[in-house]
Amino acid sequence: MTSSASATAPLPITDARQTSRSAPQSGSLIEAFLTVRGETERRAALLSPEDQVIQSMPDASPAKWHRAHTTWFFEQFVLGQHCRAYTPFHADYAFLFNSYYVSAGPRHTRGERGLITRPGVADIAAYRRHVDAAMVDFLGSADAATLADIAPLVEVGLNHEQQHQELMLTDILHAFAQNPIAPAYDPSWTFPTPTGAGEEWVSLPEGIHTVGHAGDGYHFDNERPVHRALVGPVKLARNLVTNADWVAFMADGGYATATLWLMDGFAAASREGWQAPGHWYKVEGEWRIMTLGGLKPVDPNAPVCHVSYYEADAFARWSGRHLPTEMEWEVAARGHQLNDAFGIVWQWTRSAYSPYPGYRAIEGALGEYNGKFMVNQLVLRGSSLATPAGHSRVTYRNFFYPHHRWQFTGLRLADYA
Amino acid sequence: MTSSASATAPLPITDARQTSRSAPQSGSLIEAFLTVRGETERRAALLSPEDQVIQSMPDASPAKWHRAHTTWFFEQFVLGQHCRAYTPFHADYAFLFNSYYVSAGPRHTRGERGLITRPGVADIAAYRRHVDAAMVDFLGSADAATLADIAPLVEVGLNHEQQHQELMLTDILHAFAQNPIAPAYDPSWTFPTPTGAGEEWVSLPEGIHTVGHAGDGYHFDNERPVHRALVGPVKLARNLVTNADWVAFMADGGYATATLWLMDGFAAASREGWQAPGHWYKVEGEWRIMTLGGLKPVDPNAPVCHVSYYEADAFARWSGRHLPTEMEWEVAARGHQLNDAFGIVWQWTRSAYSPYPGYRAIEGALGEYNGKFMVNQLVLRGSSLATPAGHSRVTYRNFFYPHHRWQFTGLRLADYA
Amino acid sequence: MTSSASATAPLPITDARQTSRSAPQSGSLIEAFLTVRGETERRAALLSPEDQVIQSMPDASPAKWHRAHTTWFFEQFVLGQHCRAYTPFHADYAFLFNSYYVSAGPRHTRGERGLITRPGVADIAAYRRHVDAAMVDFLGSADAATLADIAPLVEVGLNHEQQHQELMLTDILHAFAQNPIAPAYDPSWTFPTPTGAGEEWVSLPEGIHTVGHAGDGYHFDNERPVHRALVGPVKLARNLVTNADWVAFMADGGYATATLWLMDGFAAASREGWQAPGHWYKVEGEWRIMTLGGLKPVDPNAPVCHVSYYEADAFARWSGRHLPTEMEWEVAARGHQLNDAFGIVWQWTRSAYSPYPGYRAIEGALGEYNGKFMVNQLVLRGSSLATPAGHSRVTYRNFFYPHHRWQFTGLRLADYA
Amino acid sequence: MTSSASATAPLPITDARQTSRSAPQSGSLIEAFLTVRGETERRAALLSPEDQVIQSMPDASPAKWHRAHTTWFFEQFVLGQHCRAYTPFHADYAFLFNSYYVSAGPRHTRGERGLITRPGVADIAAYRRHVDAAMVDFLGSADAATLADIAPLVEVGLNHEQQHQELMLTDILHAFAQNPIAPAYDPSWTFPTPTGAGEEWVSLPEGIHTVGHAGDGYHFDNERPVHRALVGPVKLARNLVTNADWVAFMADGGYATATLWLMDGFAAASREGWQAPGHWYKVEGEWRIMTLGGLKPVDPNAPVCHVSYYEADAFARWSGRHLPTEMEWEVAARGHQLNDAFGIVWQWTRSAYSPYPGYRAIEGALGEYNGKFMVNQLVLRGSSLATPAGHSRVTYRNFFYPHHRWQFTGLRLADYA
Ligand SMILES: [Fe+3]
Ligand SMILES: [Fe+3]
Ligand SMILES: [Fe+3]
Ligand SMILES: [Fe+3]
Repeated sequence: MTSSASATAPLPITDARQTSRSAPQSGSLIEAFLTVRGETERRAALLSPEDQVIQSMPDASPAKWHRAHTTWFFEQFVLGQHCRAYTPFHADYAFLFNSYYVSAGPRHTRGERGLITRPGVADIAAYRRHVDAAMVDFLGSADAATLADIAPLVEVGLNHEQQHQELMLTDILHAFAQNPIAPAYDPSWTFPTPTGAGEEWVSLPEGIHTVGHAGDGYHFDNERPVHRALVGPVKLARNLVTNADWVAFMADGGYATATLWLMDGFAAASREGWQAPGHWYKVEGEWRIMTLGGLKPVDPNAPVCHVSYYEADAFARWSGRHLPTEMEWEVAARGHQLNDAFGIVWQWTRSAYSPYPGYRAIEGALGEYNGKFMVNQLVLRGSSLATPAGHSRVTYRNFFYPHHRWQFTGLRLADYA
Repeated sequence: MTSSASATAPLPITDARQTSRSAPQSGSLIEAFLTVRGETERRAALLSPEDQVIQSMPDASPAKWHRAHTTWFFEQFVLGQHCRAYTPFHADYAFLFNSYYVSAGPRHTRGERGLITRPGVADIAAYRRHVDAAMVDFLGSADAATLADIAPLVEVGLNHEQQHQELMLTDILHAFAQNPIAPAYDPSWTFPTPTGAGEEWVSLPEGIHTVGHAGDGYHFDNERPVHRALVGPVKLARNLVTNADWVAFMADGGYATATLWLMDGFAAASREGWQAPGHWYKVEGEWRIMTLGGLKPVDPNAPVCHVSYYEADAFARWSGRHLPTEMEWEVAARGHQLNDAFGIVWQWTRSAYSPYPGYRAIEGALGEYNGKFMVNQLVLRGSSLATPAGHSRVTYRNFFYPHHRWQFTGLRLADYA
Repeated sequence: MTSSASATAPLPITDARQTSRSAPQSGSLIEAFLTVRGETERRAALLSPEDQVIQSMPDASPAKWHRAHTTWFFEQFVLGQHCRAYTPFHADYAFLFNSYYVSAGPRHTRGERGLITRPGVADIAAYRRHVDAAMVDFLGSADAATLADIAPLVEVGLNHEQQHQELMLTDILHAFAQNPIAPAYDPSWTFPTPTGAGEEWVSLPEGIHTVGHAGDGYHFDNERPVHRALVGPVKLARNLVTNADWVAFMADGGYATATLWLMDGFAAASREGWQAPGHWYKVEGEWRIMTLGGLKPVDPNAPVCHVSYYEADAFARWSGRHLPTEMEWEVAARGHQLNDAFGIVWQWTRSAYSPYPGYRAIEGALGEYNGKFMVNQLVLRGSSLATPAGHSRVTYRNFFYPHHRWQFTGLRLADYA
Repeated sequence: MTSSASATAPLPITDARQTSRSAPQSGSLIEAFLTVRGETERRAALLSPEDQVIQSMPDASPAKWHRAHTTWFFEQFVLGQHCRAYTPFHADYAFLFNSYYVSAGPRHTRGERGLITRPGVADIAAYRRHVDAAMVDFLGSADAATLADIAPLVEVGLNHEQQHQELMLTDILHAFAQNPIAPAYDPSWTFPTPTGAGEEWVSLPEGIHTVGHAGDGYHFDNERPVHRALVGPVKLARNLVTNADWVAFMADGGYATATLWLMDGFAAASREGWQAPGHWYKVEGEWRIMTLGGLKPVDPNAPVCHVSYYEADAFARWSGRHLPTEMEWEVAARGHQLNDAFGIVWQWTRSAYSPYPGYRAIEGALGEYNGKFMVNQLVLRGSSLATPAGHSRVTYRNFFYPHHRWQFTGLRLADYA
């Protein structure tokens, strides 16, 4: 993956929301469908049945739940509502695998996903095959009007599944990190090498820019409306903060100095006993990082990963700098001025996750996809090593709570001096 | 209080941060000092010793703690650091009455303020007299250079004390609201009458505006730097949302309809069992409001009060509108376009409480005053019925957590259609 | 107070439960009533209004609550049910001051007693005077049949009030111990001197004994039925465990050695960070004890106080001994074989607080007095320095949870070797 | 299983603690070992890998943990300490599978057993085979002196494993009961039929009895010392309380009537929302019971199961009766006077789980087996449908906390009238 703002090629699907776009082709939809669905199974293949059943904390979900929930998404929003011939695989799965869509009916308690040993891994695999076959049939036989109706829903479903592909890795890494024997998800895995290194600053003079998603390509509703924003003057770091930078912060007492922290942040750090980024463990006096490849030494040149917003903010203050806003990040990334904007770590911004001016959630259950989370969370921009190919976007708004650090999250600095 | 944006006359004190301003006069400083200090005692005079000692929840503080803490503020930041002749009233009070200033030394646990029965109310009164006398002496005898040094600190201290004057009322109202016999703080108290009523909209076309505090007058550091912001197009409601509006929301099942709410908001509402605004109680089938004047019927024409951000946001969604941003509010208020911007209820905005671009907290312990709270809270604009005269400002940024509703908080709507 | 088992003289009241006893005299009843009521006020007199309002933990209650609740007891169970002429002092007090009697109607939440600033201390004093006057009138004018009916209830009320007299001291000591300035309840107070010292053992051979309360005197229902019990062979320590003994346990790592503790006990000690008995504080490297007389040095000869059952049990195991059963204690105390059985510290036994064989709670609300607590608590025998004169009894069963240590609780050992 | 007090035949192993007993034979030891070990695997065979990994609450453990922990027990206490030739299967397993033996070294956190997906089910099976082979070798080749040393440890290990066999079923039933699709552990399973029915009373006149374990057979240390106890007069119900009885209690408002309950019990019932025994669910207006055979109708003639001590105590009070003490139970059971003393449900007694007079835990890590739990729990007598053959005993003291109800727990009544 390069560090260019355009990132990876998007999925080869048209966006039926744009009436001017060419009609969706069932062949390319089926191809995209099978590609994305296959990637989920490829990621799950390294996991045993035991690995796939547990929920290591309320924020995480079992791997087999991810596999089932993404399948339910197609069953609920495509097949169930548009394909008259479809028979649901199992009467109870809608209850078990609806995540948070109040409009889609009653659902299982989020924090109890790890209590469901049955249906087992084999049942979930059969569920996926059942829905895959139905989808391929349906897409292959749909007439043009139906295709035009459902193509946007299929696209949402595939982008949704890609999000869960990333979560499947972050969640299993968290689970393995709780295990005293520190299992490796993939023993051959290594941390990606950053494109750039060293201190270098990108200048953004004051200017009005158009931000948010404007074009035909796929996007989530939270990237809309495209609107004008006043950005700058500010300088953004071309490169990501590294482990070496972070170790200097730690060595300078960063985790113990209350005046460097937001009050809620220091309270979280004290309560949780944070002394280093997430998944760092001191083994015989040396810091080690729990990774998808198992427990590894700290590479000073690698971008720091698994830091919360609170830690990122304290680090920025310690370094005499700030975190950028999401608009500053977007403008710089659109200008291809940032190294490693995509593909290594999501980058915390100091922008609260709020609606864009005039934002309205879309009608129906899918309106719950993004809108109801727009409080208490911070925006992260870019993408990470776990983000699937084709899922990165310069207008993409990821969001997590400020104490979260089980995701692949890092930072780059801003300077207003 | 009028609804003009300039609100009430500011305290008659010069701002020594501005080198161009005229030198501070000890006479006017002493007058301002005694005025503000006297207002605190006037508010406390209606409370018994028993009333002043308890802490009805961790977010609130005992009245006698407010009286002592504001006194400590002058002892710590003015007398202790600038007046060689000063002898502290008591060796343990710095520990007991430092709120959250890590830089000012160790301090008592916030949640345990209600466990301190001694020093009692009489001791705190003596403490206040001791510091008042020392301050008047010091201000009266200081030379011009000293005055120029300390005048800004005195101003911070007085504005700080004004903030606690408001908190003293909100906190005792909360305490009285927990009491089954519903005591009245002041039996003669009545809710203020709003200036305007009915649906009316103020239009703000797109434009770049200068926002934040620019002039010589007193302001907190979070109102700085003054900067340019792109605002509009948007329409703002000229009037506040009323109890009648809110009762319609309740009657339409507002509190029970998950899809109207932010997810964290609905979780809070469910957990806390919210069915109406804070301090509303159903008495023999009728809603009553616990006020500073005791338990009262709901006045349909009065602005709704004691709603959390979560509720304000749900109400806005239910009404097909939004909450304004803080910048939209400021621009409209600067244009004198809003009724009751000041003096009845603080108005929730949908702006997260974040630093303005380039914000840096001031050096030293006072840098902890505002900066370290800039996460997880939302900005409220205007002022309330409990805000002391002279303390309102069009650039004023108040902030609370989205679940908070023991303050005098209401809302006005915005429309992006 | 002597160390004899018969302890102090009981209240001069007959027990109307025993038909064979002589008729109660209104004069002696009034005298007992005024004596006990006066003692409550004498104990409260050292407390300020501020002291009397707070609740320093859910297990404790405010001093003014104790004063009001004991008053309500007479209003509820004597005046309200037997004196037609009586007018309640205030319509809301039954709700506010009923502690846990479900049968006596709805009541205020136990953990929120510290939120009630009004009625204030002066109101409670007036409440007490109102009820005292009504009681004296009623007792003075009652005919013999009425007197016979109500005398037992008055006795319960007086013994109840004596229990609360002790709690008033333990609760205020706990409150003062949370205060960094460590106020003294009574600066002239000193810890009582034990009668005996040194290791000495009392032998009890196996035998069937009659235990529980048999005679005419006052007793609680949990001391009944009198029954036969097989006790011994066992030896009991004639003297109480001292601070010197306890310091040796501490010096030997007693608090850090898991294998000395019950599992629940070690979990409590770890969770709470226990390193010494309750109310012990290390001040400049030396242990100090927070007492009714303020912070004091540790007297090695004084009986250890403020230890939980968990600590007492761990100490006994460390010393190669055990705690006695309540029946062993009672048999030895009946034989006048124990030093300081009464008047210094309540003594933990290893007997769970269970009903005696055939125990039935009395009918009506007073049946809730003792019976519903008969699980999860341990029996303590004897009495303490805070127990009022005339309230100790060889059959008395006090009970607390095993983690409790804010009472005046100590121990004596048993040996089965 | 008959209702006789001697229950099932004990394991054919001698007790080396009794010097007078004949020397243990390696053949019979190996046979017993293989029989018990095989029963664990037989019970686990119905579970999928997914079923075996989760921990549905902190009190429960994963099935594969039970399989591993019981194996570690032999590794730790037999092979590791006595068999020089033995090589541990895996360096980390002692940490992972030590339950609570502080003396046996550091161990994994109890509440996090469900986070260990690896080692997986196949690894645990290999671990069991490794230890089984080593044990058979060791027992088969040990000389007489070694056999005499280790036979008691092997016996403890086998009885320990039998206890976990029962827990494996109660824990998986709890896990399945959390699953909305209610899986059946064994679809062919049915609830055992009680021997007796109807109200019938067994009289025990007052008398001194010898209680506790006296003979040569296997027993846990908490059954010792054998001692004399005064029991009676009392009557015990010959039969167990049934579902029909319980439904009458429910219909009479038993769960909603505070005065029937211990205070801690009613608090637990309210907090947990209890309206019926554990694992009862209302399905379309009818109560169903979640069993090892899946969700079943309520059989009125079956003994009530999955009730807590709090519920059992409330039921007894409602019925005007009591729960028996453990000694009353033991004396009646020794006299073969109780129906279904064994094999259906454990029976709550009102005896706190305390040490017998003079009890001392055995030396070393195995001293932690029983002794450190002797507080806050209640004794249950008899055995249940899940207790393995040969594991029941008239002196057996089982113990659980009063709120526990995931075990197969029921009750029989006592009458002191
Ligand atoms: Fe999803
Ligand atoms: Fe303050
Ligand atoms: Fe009481
Ligand atoms: Fe075990």
